[in-house]
Amino acid sequence: MNGIDRIISDLCTQTDSRIVLLVMDGLGDLPQDGRTPLEAAATPHLDRLAAGGACGLTDPVSMGITPGSGPAHLALFGYDPTSYQLGRGILEALGVDVDVGPDDLVARGNFATLQGGLIVDRRAGRIPTEENQELCRTLNASLSPIEGAGIRVYPGKEHRFVVKFTRKGLSDTLSDADPQKEQKPRSYTTALEPEAEDTALLVNGFMDRATEILQDQERANTVLLRGFARFPSIPTMQDRFKLRPAAIANYPMYKGLAKLVGMEVLEVGPEIPDLFSTLERHYTDFDFFYVHVKKTDSAGEDGDFAAKTEAITRTDTFIPRITDLGPDVLAVTSDHSTPCRLKSHSWHPNPLLIHAATAQPDLVSAFSEKACSQGYLGRFPALHAMALMLAHGGKLKKFGA
Amino acid sequence: MNGIDRIISDLCTQTDSRIVLLVMDGLGDLPQDGRTPLEAAATPHLDRLAAGGACGLTDPVSMGITPGSGPAHLALFGYDPTSYQLGRGILEALGVDVDVGPDDLVARGNFATLQGGLIVDRRAGRIPTEENQELCRTLNASLSPIEGAGIRVYPGKEHRFVVKFTRKGLSDTLSDADPQKEQKPRSYTTALEPEAEDTALLVNGFMDRATEILQDQERANTVLLRGFARFPSIPTMQDRFKLRPAAIANYPMYKGLAKLVGMEVLEVGPEIPDLFSTLERHYTDFDFFYVHVKKTDSAGEDGDFAAKTEAITRTDTFIPRITDLGPDVLAVTSDHSTPCRLKSHSWHPNPLLIHAATAQPDLVSAFSEKACSQGYLGRFPALHAMALMLAHGGKLKKFGA
Repeated sequence: MNGIDRIISDLCTQTDSRIVLLVMDGLGDLPQDGRTPLEAAATPHLDRLAAGGACGLTDPVSMGITPGSGPAHLALFGYDPTSYQLGRGILEALGVDVDVGPDDLVARGNFATLQGGLIVDRRAGRIPTEENQELCRTLNASLSPIEGAGIRVYPGKEHRFVVKFTRKGLSDTLSDADPQKEQKPRSYTTALEPEAEDTALLVNGFMDRATEILQDQERANTVLLRGFARFPSIPTMQDRFKLRPAAIANYPMYKGLAKLVGMEVLEVGPEIPDLFSTLERHYTDFDFFYVHVKKTDSAGEDGDFAAKTEAITRTDTFIPRITDLGPDVLAVTSDHSTPCRLKSHSWHPNPLLIHAATAQPDLVSAFSEKACSQGYLGRFPALHAMALMLAHGGKLKKFGA
Repeated sequence: MNGIDRIISDLCTQTDSRIVLLVMDGLGDLPQDGRTPLEAAATPHLDRLAAGGACGLTDPVSMGITPGSGPAHLALFGYDPTSYQLGRGILEALGVDVDVGPDDLVARGNFATLQGGLIVDRRAGRIPTEENQELCRTLNASLSPIEGAGIRVYPGKEHRFVVKFTRKGLSDTLSDADPQKEQKPRSYTTALEPEAEDTALLVNGFMDRATEILQDQERANTVLLRGFARFPSIPTMQDRFKLRPAAIANYPMYKGLAKLVGMEVLEVGPEIPDLFSTLERHYTDFDFFYVHVKKTDSAGEDGDFAAKTEAITRTDTFIPRITDLGPDVLAVTSDHSTPCRLKSHSWHPNPLLIHAATAQPDLVSAFSEKACSQGYLGRFPALHAMALMLAHGGKLKKFGA
């Protein structure tokens, strides 16, 4: 922890106050016909919170940087995303409930189609998840240790899986073993430092062995691997902020991120209302709740302005379910922007509102990108939002005398 | 490069998109009769860009710090001016096309008038440039190496020149050899660390020898030196940002700054319209253009409110020449403020507008200091403007997964 992280950590104090952080993934957007989805949506409850609270804009990593979900969420959880850099493999692994320890190396895998020596489909025709599960059972039954390392694969959705190698001294300084484009030959991993050469042999041995085992499959007859990662050492939110934090999220990636920082990941159904039922059920058990709405981001990725607007309107209707619980702090924001026009994450800052008895009401009377740009909180790195939430919840003591 | 610089550099990707950065030197100002020059000027085109783009205010170095042209420009070019500190001599040298290498030490020189043991004119009556050129020829013909170092002088405008010393192991940790005020005796340089003592002997030897050679001159009969500097090692914009950058500037200092960060300095005539002809001529050859308008700053330094207003009005008329080229990103800003009332650089932040298809239009509908303070970009270190320009131009990949 650097200077200010250390100071904040030392000032944290455990209290009975409750903080709810509602993250509408990919919320920020650009206007179409003069309005962003957030401006076009019916958001009477969010607007009321903005009017009574303090608003601002946050940069997930640094101005101009488009973040992946990992760095964007770490920042929201109060972790400097430039200090804590995560391999994608680790997030996928945590998201599908793979137990990762200090001797483990994980990577994201794809089942793929090999034909005439070329990868002709990097996703094996997006095989059904059930077929994937069957293939993983076959692989786990047939694989024996290679180079002294245990190997296990875990099915994800469609063609995706996670592989875990277990042996002391494995390295994650490896290139992706993925040709990235189709109509290219299979690709092996390469050690990016001499100490990783043993691990590269092991990984490439696994890839060859898996391809042998799968050779009679029609579509899923080889594997690609990328995002090699060992378990990162990150202090928990309990240690850093003296919080008892819980995560309420439907999707593996976000559950994984929450676990990584020590949150208890709560059981939750697949739909938006399920998030709020879970919050209500566990409201007395924790003092920090991270609630994650995915649909805003998926709609942005699809470039579907109407669906994004609808997801926001829908989410707004559940706000009273949160406020009825009477949290001391309710913060609403996104992890990053996903403008429909770009169909991808972007660098545009996140609108943020903090509603609390101790929040300074500002001139903002609606929750939107433009409106938040006029807010009392100004524009600042998302990393600082955690200290603001803690402060508004009375969880930060005075610094110095 | 520190953490975030390294991250940005790794995310940069070469594309066909084009960025134009128009710098109106010293643009920011304070009001007279309620309006700043930027508010008093007729700027329909800049106002239109501001209305359609994203606006903000930037601090060149840090709040309250008045920057020289060097740090102010380095920040605009994306270089942390507190990490990369430049001697003024190096800028002058690069600006007059002196080739500077790792064994060279350069300094800015003035021809001056010595009378009765006192410097009576620090600028030798601003001798004509032609006389300066003749004096430099004389000095170069008469000077022989001192203390084993080669010495060469290069004429600038009027009384200004650059001196270059060449020998291994020279130091630039030297005090200025300039009494700063008139009616004082000649001043020698002093070593500011023991390792610089050899170099001080060499420099002072040159000053004595030059004064001997010039003794029969009426006005230019001695020299003053300041801004001792060795060649700084700065990564180029090509290396850091994968740009092919070009500079379009009339004045040596700005050409020098541009060269220092690896820009190609284009041939350009002396007037404002020449800047835009050059831009048009080379528009397909580069993907980043730094266009520098000097008159706004000169007028500010002269305290000439009307001339500054006129320079802004004039520059505005050329904006369509830029927008007709269809750049993907057009950023307009200043390097620092030069308020007429202060007749000098100041710490006031720079108005900034970024016009791009991916820019978030905000509530700002005019380009001015006050209007930009309400912008979506907020107030931030000028250093981050480069990442914003790159992002808006689609030249930054996603960070993390």
